[in-house]
Amino acid sequence: MTQSAGVRPRGAGRAQLHETALRLFARDGVEGTSLQAIADDMGVTKAAVYYHYRSKDDLVLGVLAPLFTSLDVILDRAAEHRSRAARLDEFLVGMVDLIVGNHARFAVLVGDPYVSRLMEDHHDLVGWWNRIVDEIIGDKSDPIIPTALIIFLSGMTAPLTTPPVADIGADEQREQLVECGRRILGIRRRSA
Amino acid sequence: MTQSAGVRPRGAGRAQLHETALRLFARDGVEGTSLQAIADDMGVTKAAVYYHYRSKDDLVLGVLAPLFTSLDVILDRAAEHRSRAARLDEFLVGMVDLIVGNHARFAVLVGDPYVSRLMEDHHDLVGWWNRIVDEIIGDKSDPIIPTALIIFLSGMTAPLTTPPVADIGADEQREQLVECGRRILGIRRRSA
Repeated sequence: MTQSAGVRPRGAGRAQLHETALRLFARDGVEGTSLQAIADDMGVTKAAVYYHYRSKDDLVLGVLAPLFTSLDVILDRAAEHRSRAARLDEFLVGMVDLIVGNHARFAVLVGDPYVSRLMEDHHDLVGWWNRIVDEIIGDKSDPIIPTALIIFLSGMTAPLTTPPVADIGADEQREQLVECGRRILGIRRRSA
Repeated sequence: MTQSAGVRPRGAGRAQLHETALRLFARDGVEGTSLQAIADDMGVTKAAVYYHYRSKDDLVLGVLAPLFTSLDVILDRAAEHRSRAARLDEFLVGMVDLIVGNHARFAVLVGDPYVSRLMEDHHDLVGWWNRIVDEIIGDKSDPIIPTALIIFLSGMTAPLTTPPVADIGADEQREQLVECGRRILGIRRRSA
């Protein structure tokens, strides 16, 4: 099977696999989609899918991996600023860009109970939040900042699926989300 | 069975049933809790549970009913104000009171996929959002208001389960949530 998968570059096959998986997840749910169904839809053998991922859990984690890499990059970059306002602003703009830019891709995965369990088992979400508290918020003197940030991070994807905001363009969505984030965090403008 | 259930007042039996159901839902999940398990835990027959609810769906909807009644009351009361700022503020304070006051009771139900499906089938959530847009927001001239309100309503329960906010008292939680709501909606103080 290594030979047949080797006919085209490994990266291209994996991208097509992710695309097919996301389309079937959206149609049948993550729980209701088997590796066999994905292979059938691509017109390849199940072995060709196994060449990339050993299980459905592996595949779902593979589809999510770029999101977690981006989260780390955004955190690292924002943490470099000296002032808290600048850190918060860079972090918020980065998160909005990530969510708006990948919305079609990740909407099907965010909130899915199967995916949530998988993320809790394989990604340190508590550690990620602790890094935000320590490295982005830093100064603990204003107790409302963590509350504001949790509300924003938990609620920021909802407008993208709720009219009327769901129906405006990505640029305007991005602008409105950033403005809402700045308001709730009490920061005035981008200081980056 | 009507006779045995009639030994104590109907209202009291129902309250105890709700309490037991919520405790078992929290322990075993809504999907993993049967009417039989609830009856066993209460030391009554399944028939005594059937006296109140014909199915688990009915029971879950019964447990949720006070929440939906409160939502309507909050909406009606807020809609009476003439100025948009006063409507938004009364609505936001009402929602925060409801969520903080019932958090222990409803945390187990909010976000549960079984409950979400049931709510979508039995409650007109889109109609509820449309009422908010028409009767609370009203004036459509500021397009950021619906975005801000969706973010707030979707994110407002998250701090109650995330440290450090989860660990502060209910009064301080209420105060912080209201302040965050006013910030993101751009309203200064309670005008009610």
